[in-house]
Amino acid sequence: MKKPNGAASVTRKQLLSAAGELMATRGSTDISLNDIAEKSGLSSALVKYYFGNKAGMMLGLLREVLAPSLLQLRHLPAMELPPQTKLRIHISGLVKSYYLHPYVNRLMHQLLYEDSETFGPILAEEFSRPVADVQKMILEEGTRLGVFRPVDPLFFYLHIIGACDQLFHGRAQLEHLFGVKTIDDDVRRGFIDHLYGVVMSGIAAPVSSS
Amino acid sequence: MKKPNGAASVTRKQLLSAAGELMATRGSTDISLNDIAEKSGLSSALVKYYFGNKAGMMLGLLREVLAPSLLQLRHLPAMELPPQTKLRIHISGLVKSYYLHPYVNRLMHQLLYEDSETFGPILAEEFSRPVADVQKMILEEGTRLGVFRPVDPLFFYLHIIGACDQLFHGRAQLEHLFGVKTIDDDVRRGFIDHLYGVVMSGIAAPVSSS
Repeated sequence: MKKPNGAASVTRKQLLSAAGELMATRGSTDISLNDIAEKSGLSSALVKYYFGNKAGMMLGLLREVLAPSLLQLRHLPAMELPPQTKLRIHISGLVKSYYLHPYVNRLMHQLLYEDSETFGPILAEEFSRPVADVQKMILEEGTRLGVFRPVDPLFFYLHIIGACDQLFHGRAQLEHLFGVKTIDDDVRRGFIDHLYGVVMSGIAAPVSSS
Repeated sequence: MKKPNGAASVTRKQLLSAAGELMATRGSTDISLNDIAEKSGLSSALVKYYFGNKAGMMLGLLREVLAPSLLQLRHLPAMELPPQTKLRIHISGLVKSYYLHPYVNRLMHQLLYEDSETFGPILAEEFSRPVADVQKMILEEGTRLGVFRPVDPLFFYLHIIGACDQLFHGRAQLEHLFGVKTIDDDVRRGFIDHLYGVVMSGIAAPVSSS
């Protein structure tokens, strides 16, 4: 049977969206090839055909769901906006990405846990580097314009990513310590306001007393 | 054979320190009961006897290595120091804990990954609650004294824990994006300075213009 590119691409997407839906509804990344086959109505052998193995498919899913956010992110530095606004858009975009795809985070940790030698460099280059680069550009612009004090981009990166990550990674803590059962719009907006507020005041250039 | 409490406690500690050393030297939490038996010179059956299973032993290890930090933490609120200094000691203590026991973090994530229903509440109550409680007390003291603006303790908790966690959890990113191969004293001190500096300026009460 001849398989035109179009059909192949549709099949690929069908497998990925079945996997994504399963993880989102189950709240777990622990799904089997059989689950994916059943949900998509396609053979589990197709996963092997298109992605090599389950880990390859997980990587394919990350690429698919994060592509729009990464595209938006790349456009941010060149926009005609003050660096403070760019920082706010960036933080809000990060939190929104985690919120829309709650399994992204766990999936990355799981790939690293399974095989950090293979996936460490791939995840770092494809998903972390664009974030680190854009942050560096925004920080440099802010310092040049005299609105930010100089900040180490490495520490800044760890600080922002870690904080956003924790909102979604620390669900057990949220529920048991603070009685927060779901991360709804209010929690999400509150957290963005907090993080932006603290970080923005925290890196603002000192007001000149002259 | 009679087993006095003292000998039992020594055996228990021997097993825990063998497990801790193995994880520290291998840079991985993926160790077997046989590894532990070989390293400690004791039978792997003793793990079952003292801890139930491997996960139980991991929890025992977390309790053992984190006990001194938790004790120090509990004394912090009552110390006669300004709340800003308490905040600095707290951040520096958190980073130092992760630094001294680099596997602690992974171990917690692994226990949650394996069985979040069992370990979620235990980890939250034993290790996260004391941190959240102490932070809340420091924040309240600072607000009362007029040196901090009011800050949501939940968001503050996620922010600080996430940032400190990321320094050690994001090793793959550190190496590939920033060329940082080991988290040495300089990186650790630099990160503490950054986080404390940004957060402290970020939550400082606005200077009254009167």
